[in-house]
Amino acid sequence: MPEVVFSVDQGKSMSEQAVPGHNRWHPDVPVATMVRPGSDFRVECREWTDAQIGNNDSANDVRDVDLSRAHMLSGPIGVEGAEPGDLLVVDILDLGPVQAPQEFGDAPGQGWGYTGIFARENGGGFLTDNSLGGTATGEVADRIAREGARTVPARENGGNHDIKNFTRGSRVFYPVHVNDAKLSGGDLHFSQGDGEITFCGAIEMGGFIDFGVDLIKGGMETYAVTTNPIFMPGNVEPRYSEFLTFIGISVDHENDTNEYLNATLAYKRACLNAVEYLKKFGYSGEQAYLLLGSAPIEGRVSGIVDIPNACCSLYLPTAIFDFDVRPSSAGPVSADRGMAAISS
Amino acid sequence: MPEVVFSVDQGKSMSEQAVPGHNRWHPDVPVATMVRPGSDFRVECREWTDAQIGNNDSANDVRDVDLSRAHMLSGPIGVEGAEPGDLLVVDILDLGPVQAPQEFGDAPGQGWGYTGIFARENGGGFLTDNSLGGTATGEVADRIAREGARTVPARENGGNHDIKNFTRGSRVFYPVHVNDAKLSGGDLHFSQGDGEITFCGAIEMGGFIDFGVDLIKGGMETYAVTTNPIFMPGNVEPRYSEFLTFIGISVDHENDTNEYLNATLAYKRACLNAVEYLKKFGYSGEQAYLLLGSAPIEGRVSGIVDIPNACCSLYLPTAIFDFDVRPSSAGPVSADRGMAAISS
Amino acid sequence: MPEVVFSVDQGKSMSEQAVPGHNRWHPDVPVATMVRPGSDFRVECREWTDAQIGNNDSANDVRDVDLSRAHMLSGPIGVEGAEPGDLLVVDILDLGPVQAPQEFGDAPGQGWGYTGIFARENGGGFLTDNSLGGTATGEVADRIAREGARTVPARENGGNHDIKNFTRGSRVFYPVHVNDAKLSGGDLHFSQGDGEITFCGAIEMGGFIDFGVDLIKGGMETYAVTTNPIFMPGNVEPRYSEFLTFIGISVDHENDTNEYLNATLAYKRACLNAVEYLKKFGYSGEQAYLLLGSAPIEGRVSGIVDIPNACCSLYLPTAIFDFDVRPSSAGPVSADRGMAAISS
Amino acid sequence: MPEVVFSVDQGKSMSEQAVPGHNRWHPDVPVATMVRPGSDFRVECREWTDAQIGNNDSANDVRDVDLSRAHMLSGPIGVEGAEPGDLLVVDILDLGPVQAPQEFGDAPGQGWGYTGIFARENGGGFLTDNSLGGTATGEVADRIAREGARTVPARENGGNHDIKNFTRGSRVFYPVHVNDAKLSGGDLHFSQGDGEITFCGAIEMGGFIDFGVDLIKGGMETYAVTTNPIFMPGNVEPRYSEFLTFIGISVDHENDTNEYLNATLAYKRACLNAVEYLKKFGYSGEQAYLLLGSAPIEGRVSGIVDIPNACCSLYLPTAIFDFDVRPSSAGPVSADRGMAAISS
Repeated sequence: MPEVVFSVDQGKSMSEQAVPGHNRWHPDVPVATMVRPGSDFRVECREWTDAQIGNNDSANDVRDVDLSRAHMLSGPIGVEGAEPGDLLVVDILDLGPVQAPQEFGDAPGQGWGYTGIFARENGGGFLTDNSLGGTATGEVADRIAREGARTVPARENGGNHDIKNFTRGSRVFYPVHVNDAKLSGGDLHFSQGDGEITFCGAIEMGGFIDFGVDLIKGGMETYAVTTNPIFMPGNVEPRYSEFLTFIGISVDHENDTNEYLNATLAYKRACLNAVEYLKKFGYSGEQAYLLLGSAPIEGRVSGIVDIPNACCSLYLPTAIFDFDVRPSSAGPVSADRGMAAISS
Repeated sequence: MPEVVFSVDQGKSMSEQAVPGHNRWHPDVPVATMVRPGSDFRVECREWTDAQIGNNDSANDVRDVDLSRAHMLSGPIGVEGAEPGDLLVVDILDLGPVQAPQEFGDAPGQGWGYTGIFARENGGGFLTDNSLGGTATGEVADRIAREGARTVPARENGGNHDIKNFTRGSRVFYPVHVNDAKLSGGDLHFSQGDGEITFCGAIEMGGFIDFGVDLIKGGMETYAVTTNPIFMPGNVEPRYSEFLTFIGISVDHENDTNEYLNATLAYKRACLNAVEYLKKFGYSGEQAYLLLGSAPIEGRVSGIVDIPNACCSLYLPTAIFDFDVRPSSAGPVSADRGMAAISS
Repeated sequence: MPEVVFSVDQGKSMSEQAVPGHNRWHPDVPVATMVRPGSDFRVECREWTDAQIGNNDSANDVRDVDLSRAHMLSGPIGVEGAEPGDLLVVDILDLGPVQAPQEFGDAPGQGWGYTGIFARENGGGFLTDNSLGGTATGEVADRIAREGARTVPARENGGNHDIKNFTRGSRVFYPVHVNDAKLSGGDLHFSQGDGEITFCGAIEMGGFIDFGVDLIKGGMETYAVTTNPIFMPGNVEPRYSEFLTFIGISVDHENDTNEYLNATLAYKRACLNAVEYLKKFGYSGEQAYLLLGSAPIEGRVSGIVDIPNACCSLYLPTAIFDFDVRPSSAGPVSADRGMAAISS
Repeated sequence: MPEVVFSVDQGKSMSEQAVPGHNRWHPDVPVATMVRPGSDFRVECREWTDAQIGNNDSANDVRDVDLSRAHMLSGPIGVEGAEPGDLLVVDILDLGPVQAPQEFGDAPGQGWGYTGIFARENGGGFLTDNSLGGTATGEVADRIAREGARTVPARENGGNHDIKNFTRGSRVFYPVHVNDAKLSGGDLHFSQGDGEITFCGAIEMGGFIDFGVDLIKGGMETYAVTTNPIFMPGNVEPRYSEFLTFIGISVDHENDTNEYLNATLAYKRACLNAVEYLKKFGYSGEQAYLLLGSAPIEGRVSGIVDIPNACCSLYLPTAIFDFDVRPSSAGPVSADRGMAAISS
């Protein structure tokens, strides 16, 4: 087990940790600790709502979640010698759920996780949260609050990628924009599909992530990696060889409108087609939607050429069902509606 | 070898064939032949420009191509008993390049194929082509010309999917909208990536395609497959286990604008990031662009959740290069710039 | 389509072809034709019994087969400049069944193939066939008859590998033992599993094979490839992700004997365990045996370490069945006993 | 994290644990604890030599190892309701290295592991170890000592399978021979190839293994699983798409002898061919041998049909090397001889 360089007490909120979490990107967020290129280390994380969702059957936790505290990351970890223009090589060596004794609480990741759908009015409060900057205080904290970029979206520095294959075994090459690179981590998922389409779409958990870091000095220029990271996915994701694939095109059938090469609409249509299909097997629309958000589906930009219609597709692995989900002359059979196996 | 039910003489244009080709979808396009559910058969096809591109090194063929003759399909093949509301089950049993003796000409598919980039002004003529309806004449032909839907884009009936995995071993479930179903085929590709991003992006070829057909009576209602086909990809596509992945987000860096969850822009950015990267290995921008259009890349809708940025990604299999395309401290080495192996 | 350098008339036996077949390895077998390193070419082949098995339901063809004519290969193809000590690089570019018009006969490969089990007394005649040496006559033919090595087993020069993955997309590096290398081909299979356990275990067919050749001069010494070829399997074999695996150990349960680290016995036991299992789903023993010989199973040397028992295993892909072949509390269900899909 | 039902103190030997380990199979070994069908639980294990090998560079630990204490398993775990004739369904949910604080010692699995080659005279003492039976004492312990079957080889009850794919995600169906089934675990490997050819071939470690258990009542008869378990491998093993494959046949070239269809000899020859090849890249024979024992190679029974020669093959994934291990005209280049990545 590599050395823990950022420790989290799963019984406390991110703002009460020894080094509090942060949900803003800003060059002035103080580094929590420094590591050397070539070293491996562990970072512990809370789940993305900071464990506001309880291990119970009530929907109220989701309704009442205070999103001003959400998406608090662990870190930043400074990498010695990293300078703007370098590529920071980050290996995701391992990640997993919480490994703390039960007496420290029952946070998501301690033997359970969750996924959810948020009402539009609730998610709407999402971008009004307080700024936070780790151990920053006084004027620095004010500057971070004024200027900081929220950690929620994908960004030029990486940000919140929510890419299905961004997991154990991956190697990421991040463009370095600030001294020490300042690597942060959090918002871990036990499972997710491409797109994480339901907003809180994955199986959310707290836990740990083991990183290895290295540098390619001047690599941004050498490899023209300027606006977004590149990465090499690992080779231990769950492997499927049979898929049922749903297609969508950039036509809004509700109001009979074509939107020129709009891949967002095309993928939305593919998702809706999948939902309608799964409803024939006994799922409610909400169940089907949650399933597509957290199962290891692949979302593909299949054709973005044949004007005026973009064509996207959703690859659903058939082996995650314990009944036969393929079309047949016998019609849908779904005595048991559970999923057979979704691996982390 | 299954029976050839639609034969093409590769020495003649599609309008001169025994049954001429068609590039319109219309219920009145006459069936070329009828087959029974449960049967296998072969359909021969010309390449999508109807072999206007010659086996030479001149760019003039692409410049001078007459797009009014393009995208002429073989068929339609009627399936006995197929009625609106059914699902037509189509197995793609095999496909391949032209298998005609050399004396019948030198069409794309006869030992060679091509890919290309079209100038904007040339592609602009694309939608002004003549309507054609197989063996239709007189008033029927006029109606098809007036009402017919062009075969070029992906459509609710299937249309031109240009999906990378739509190949040997796939099983497609098409919604049936007209009696006899009327299955057509054409525009074969020797190789392509997700997206076929360069318009004429694949390796284009003429050749044959072997279909098996069956029916699920009333399947559109049974499975809620109403607006687009679904399909199960085959399991013999080339298999890769290592990828270099480029990320794009829905930010236009040229004019510093964010476009809210725009997956089209995000995928375009991922493609441009890949082009810039490959240029560091000695490719010209055009070469890199052509490579990404015809190589077996995967295009992914990775994150369409974390507002305001969509995140798409392009998975480039590293094994198609015969040099090491991964980033390293040693910098890019590219003594030999060819691709090692792109399989059909 | 590459140039055909060895043509076979599927209406005639191998001894009646323009260049007759040969079933002996001998340096003096005359080359049928010469090719250059770097070239691609097609070789046509008859099925291994020389089409003595007819497309009918009688078992007599198998009983009466004349094995003195069996295993006649096409070639040898000489490679210019190849000398003892080189490595001959052979790419298997493509292979497929017979592509001759029906009027030339109905040989295996022309739309059908077969597999079989041979009685012990019949297979016993296998090694008594006539020697044949292509176009050799007189004293040379006599020498080949006296000294030639039969083509049936795997050998140091390659020989009859019958390796499941030795197919389309593979690159083989053969040690060169004679001038011109003298590459021969034949005994094509439409499908087979590891081991080809039933002797005539694969789906046997006539057809074509497209080779590309090259040389690594002096490669035997450079790479220490002296006694057997090495190869790189292709990446387009059918891909499965779920297997039911049978284990065998080197214990003969019929006479209660352990055979020290005997992998042959261990694999035989794994096969017998699989046969007994499949019989519970309604197959006869013979059907199960034939299935394991021709389906794309994997045979593994799993443990050859823990004395005194070798442990071998047989990986059966579950997706080749169209019923659920996995054990469950519900017991075996096998309304339909066919195989869903075995691809070439 | 599932409940730990068998706990190991990594600072003590297996004979000093609260429930001591056992290295004999015998119906009278007392169960350590009982679990219910349908439950998940964790079992902790010591490394196979009981941590006699230290984290140092001396070879003496291997030379001096006391094999009388080796292969002490954790358990047995009784499963409520299991009776002879049932199938015990065992899911391997997870496994991993030691997760104990460093102050409890430095056993294999605590951040390090090892592999080794044993001298013939040392391994020779292997089968002379003391019998041990968990908490058994007095007459029961004597009977176990007299009658017990050692845990080292693969056996009809399962035993020591050492099968490469017997890992995370696998589901095993064990024949039940005794009341309560009595499941034991141990001898964990961080990595290994098919065959574990070097005796102590894997990367050996102590650690934990998470099991889920269930029963198929009467399943031995229902599925004819009588003499060996069957299993379904998981789908998260490291995935490779390019292999360099070495072939061996059942010919002993040292004394020029053929051994009729001997797969053990054929696989040995394939291994030796691989060793000779790797030596050309700068490895010593011992290094190559160790590599083949612990890397995720596949060992295949390729042809066991073409008399008189069995043909086995060894599939070496090329991606585990950080140099190009494929043959080429340029000859072997091996500036850096390390392995790029061997995943657990």
